[in-house]
This record gives sequence, structure tokens and C-alpha cells, in this order.
Amino acid sequence: MTEALDGPTAASARVDGWRAEGATIGFVPTMGALHEGHLSLVRAAKRRCDRALVSIFVNPLQFAPGEDLDRYPRDFEGDREKLASAGCDAVFTATPEEMYPDDFSTYVVEDRLSATLEGESRPTHFRGVLTVVCKLFHVARPDVAFFGQKDAQQALLIRRMVRDLGFPLEVSIEPIVRDADGLALSSRNVYLSPDERARALSLSRALAAARAAFDGGERDAAELRAAARRTIEEGGVEPEYLEVRDAGTLAPLERVTERALVLVAARVGKTRLIDNAVLGGDAL
Amino acid sequence: MTEALDGPTAASARVDGWRAEGATIGFVPTMGALHEGHLSLVRAAKRRCDRALVSIFVNPLQFAPGEDLDRYPRDFEGDREKLASAGCDAVFTATPEEMYPDDFSTYVVEDRLSATLEGESRPTHFRGVLTVVCKLFHVARPDVAFFGQKDAQQALLIRRMVRDLGFPLEVSIEPIVRDADGLALSSRNVYLSPDERARALSLSRALAAARAAFDGGERDAAELRAAARRTIEEGGVEPEYLEVRDAGTLAPLERVTERALVLVAARVGKTRLIDNAVLGGDAL
Repeated sequence: MTEALDGPTAASARVDGWRAEGATIGFVPTMGALHEGHLSLVRAAKRRCDRALVSIFVNPLQFAPGEDLDRYPRDFEGDREKLASAGCDAVFTATPEEMYPDDFSTYVVEDRLSATLEGESRPTHFRGVLTVVCKLFHVARPDVAFFGQKDAQQALLIRRMVRDLGFPLEVSIEPIVRDADGLALSSRNVYLSPDERARALSLSRALAAARAAFDGGERDAAELRAAARRTIEEGGVEPEYLEVRDAGTLAPLERVTERALVLVAARVGKTRLIDNAVLGGDAL
Repeated sequence: MTEALDGPTAASARVDGWRAEGATIGFVPTMGALHEGHLSLVRAAKRRCDRALVSIFVNPLQFAPGEDLDRYPRDFEGDREKLASAGCDAVFTATPEEMYPDDFSTYVVEDRLSATLEGESRPTHFRGVLTVVCKLFHVARPDVAFFGQKDAQQALLIRRMVRDLGFPLEVSIEPIVRDADGLALSSRNVYLSPDERARALSLSRALAAARAAFDGGERDAAELRAAARRTIEEGGVEPEYLEVRDAGTLAPLERVTERALVLVAARVGKTRLIDNAVLGGDAL
């Protein structure tokens, strides 16, 4: 059974114990509402490390006013059963009050990778993500931390933060897990009506169209984007962005000469979805 | 003899070895040009911890264009001898290239304590300080980190960062070390001509005047400031700021009811000096 640790202080004590035993620690920070994507991270942690530790914290700092903080799905008992099935050793939760006292005033910010794509419509989002991940790293002190490629920009930003601020750990980015029909798993998929879910498939179809063009030899970024855009619009979805970017720096590309990312964000009904695919390589 | 470690990677390996032995670690980050103030921090580290580790890095990120980065005093061999005399176990240096690769883009920022006093005339200074200290903490992973009260705002900011971002360590703030005539020790005192050095004494005399008024029962912050201002101006020095603030939050005070700080900054010739004194208590 997965041990439930009551808060960051208890988690830190458990980590101390594991360290004293000489065990290596894999860490998977989450906001709960776990699905197979999260569980694939836990399984990767168990393959790479002696212990797998998961955090569940719906981080208010990464939600803007008007976003879905209040209705974000929460199911701790269900999450804990899923974690047990994936071999997770321990899970800890935290409260907003534990994480952010009233006079909290210190943040981690990034000013290159974070300014584009998600950062354009959500200007304080990544400040919230980096700040909470920094705090959680100080609790968990892992050897390896696991993030999903689904949130590719977030994962690259965390890898950048780890390098820049010198956290003594490795960031492993794991492949996107999809439903059989291609929809990337997301805790927010539960918001979709059956009709919206059908239309949401046009995101992964658009990425597949870009990849097909790339596999057919197309290297012009505008052409790759156009192929993806035709597909998503045929599906009745207007993308918020649909971009071909360098897979390391997220810089815009005219031609794809190194590994690239196709990234898309779109609102389907009221639900904002993102997805991406790597061109010219398997993983980030 | 104090061991000289070549760079952050070597320092981190030494820390791993000490940790494996079960030793506790006291850490003193410095910019070199060491004086008795720094050495008092090393001695405090040796009293509190099994090992004392010092870093020497003149951090470009905390200097603005036009400040004294290029002429900041540097004397590694002299520093190392002083560290040995204070019982320091190991010292490491770092280069700007090691600390800040070309595409460095992640920073630690604080938006309350840092906005006032030093932050007003040096708007990016504390971003540089917090970012480098965060990085150095990840190298040294100390049990206790030691800072001088001389840079009171910096020390309080680092204590705030440690709390907010959950670094697993304690910040100890050690008393100001002064020359016999009262001048607070500073690596920048070497810039002062004999005449300037005489005028520089008016900073500590101003603080003494505020403290004398406080000890005489004065609790009105404007009166305490006025006593200090008369003294510093009699010494021919115009303060950049001279403030009475809450010793925890640095908020302005009308009356001193809890522990307070009197803080002063002034330019003497071309040299910018700071000093401070606690009212209603001994230490920060």
C-alpha cells in the first residue's frame, strides 16, 4: 500500500529515512486527479529509483483569477488506490496555508522560455509552477524528478530551472500517454461533453498531420504549421496557438533542422487543452 | 590548512563526503576580500557545525552597470590564509561562466522586503543576491548558513527566501564587527582616503545617537531619525537614506514598540557605505 504522509514536514522526515538507508528517490509532483499519464511517471520513477514519492497539491499560485482552481477535480482516495497499483511508496499532500503563509513573497521566475506560448495567455502561470516545484524539490530532495511531455513547455522550464539554480537532481521527461483514439490524457478531459470530446481529437490529429508531412520530407515550418492548421480547423477547433519550435529553446523556426516541437493549445467549449509532438526524435 | 576546492562541482563532492561521515556543515558565502567580519562568521560556523565551508565568488549578477564590479578587491591567497587562521575547513571559488551560462534565464525574486532601502537605488541587486545564494545553497547544502548583520536587509531577505522556498537549513545572522573607532568593517573600506575614512565615522556615530535617544526613552521614530540625522550631517555626510524600520518586515514605523532597525546608507567620496543598529534587542 502507498503510505500517506501528512504534509511536507512528514514527507521530508520520510525522505531523511530513505536517504539514511542509502535509497535513491524518484519524485513525481502532481495536482492529483491522477490518470495513466501520471501513473506512467510513477512507474518510470520505480524503474529508475529505489523509492517513488508523489506529491498531490493543487497549486493556487499557478492559476490566474477566472481559471478553474475551484472546480479542478480532486479525489484523494481514488488517487491513492491508483498510486498503490503503480507501486508508489509514499504520497504527500499539502495545504495552501502550509505552502504559502500570508506574507509569502519569494518566487522563482524565468524570462526566456516562459515568455512564449502558454506564457502569453497565462503570464503568471510559470512563476507559480517554478515556485511550487522549487519548494517541493526542497521537501523531496529526489535523485530524479519525473514530468510528462504533455506539458512540454513546463517540463523544459523545470529542466532549465534545475540547471540554472543548480538543483542536485535530474529531470526526466516521459512520453505523452494517449487514449486509444489519440486524445492526450489530461485531468481536464473530465470537463468535456461527448460532443466536445469528439472535437478535441482534432488536436492530436493536427499533430499527426504535421508529423506525416515531416515524415514525407517537409522541413519548412510554415508548411508544417499549415498542414496541422488545416486539420484542426476541419475538426471545428480554432487553435489559440499552433507553432513549430526548437525542442530545446522553444525559439521559432523557419526550417526544421534539429529536433523540433509542434505545440498546440485550443479551447474546446470552455475547456482549454494543450498537446504537442516531437519532430525528428522520440523524446525530450 | 584550509582546503582549496576548484569550483562548485568539487565543493559539492566534498560536501557529499562530509555528509557520508555524518558531519554537519556550516556555510559562509562571501565575495572574498575577507576581513574580521567574515572571519567572525567562519568562527560561528565552527562553533555550531562540524565543518565550515566558505565560498568566494564576486557575483556579477548583483552589481549594476557603473557599480564597482571590476575594481572590487580580490586577494585569494590572502583570503585563504585568513580562513585557515579562523579554522575554515574548505573554501571554493567559482567563475562567472560556471555560475551563469550564456542562456541563463532563471532568477529568485522577492517582492516585499526587497523593494525598499537598498532596493530603491539598486533595483536588480537583491535578485542577484538571492539567485546566487540559492545556487550556492544547492552546492553546499549546509545545516546552517551564516550572514552578517552589516547587510541587514540582505540577511533578512535570505532568511525570508529560505522560509518561503523551504530550503532545509537555518540562517544565522551574526553581529556587526567594527574597527576600534566604530567603523563597520566592509571590503569597500579600502576605497576610502584618510579624510573620507574620518568622515565615514559619522555613520556609526549617527546610529549611536539614535540608540542613545532610544535608551533615554525616546520611542517616536521621527525623533530617533532626527537625532541620527543631526549627527551624520554634523560629520559632513548626507545620507541616501536613514530610516527606522521594523526589524522583521522592514516596514516603516511611527513608534518603536517592538525590535527595530536603524539603517543608514551614504556616499563618502565615491564609496557607498551602509550600516545599521538594532533598537530594543541584541541581534536579528
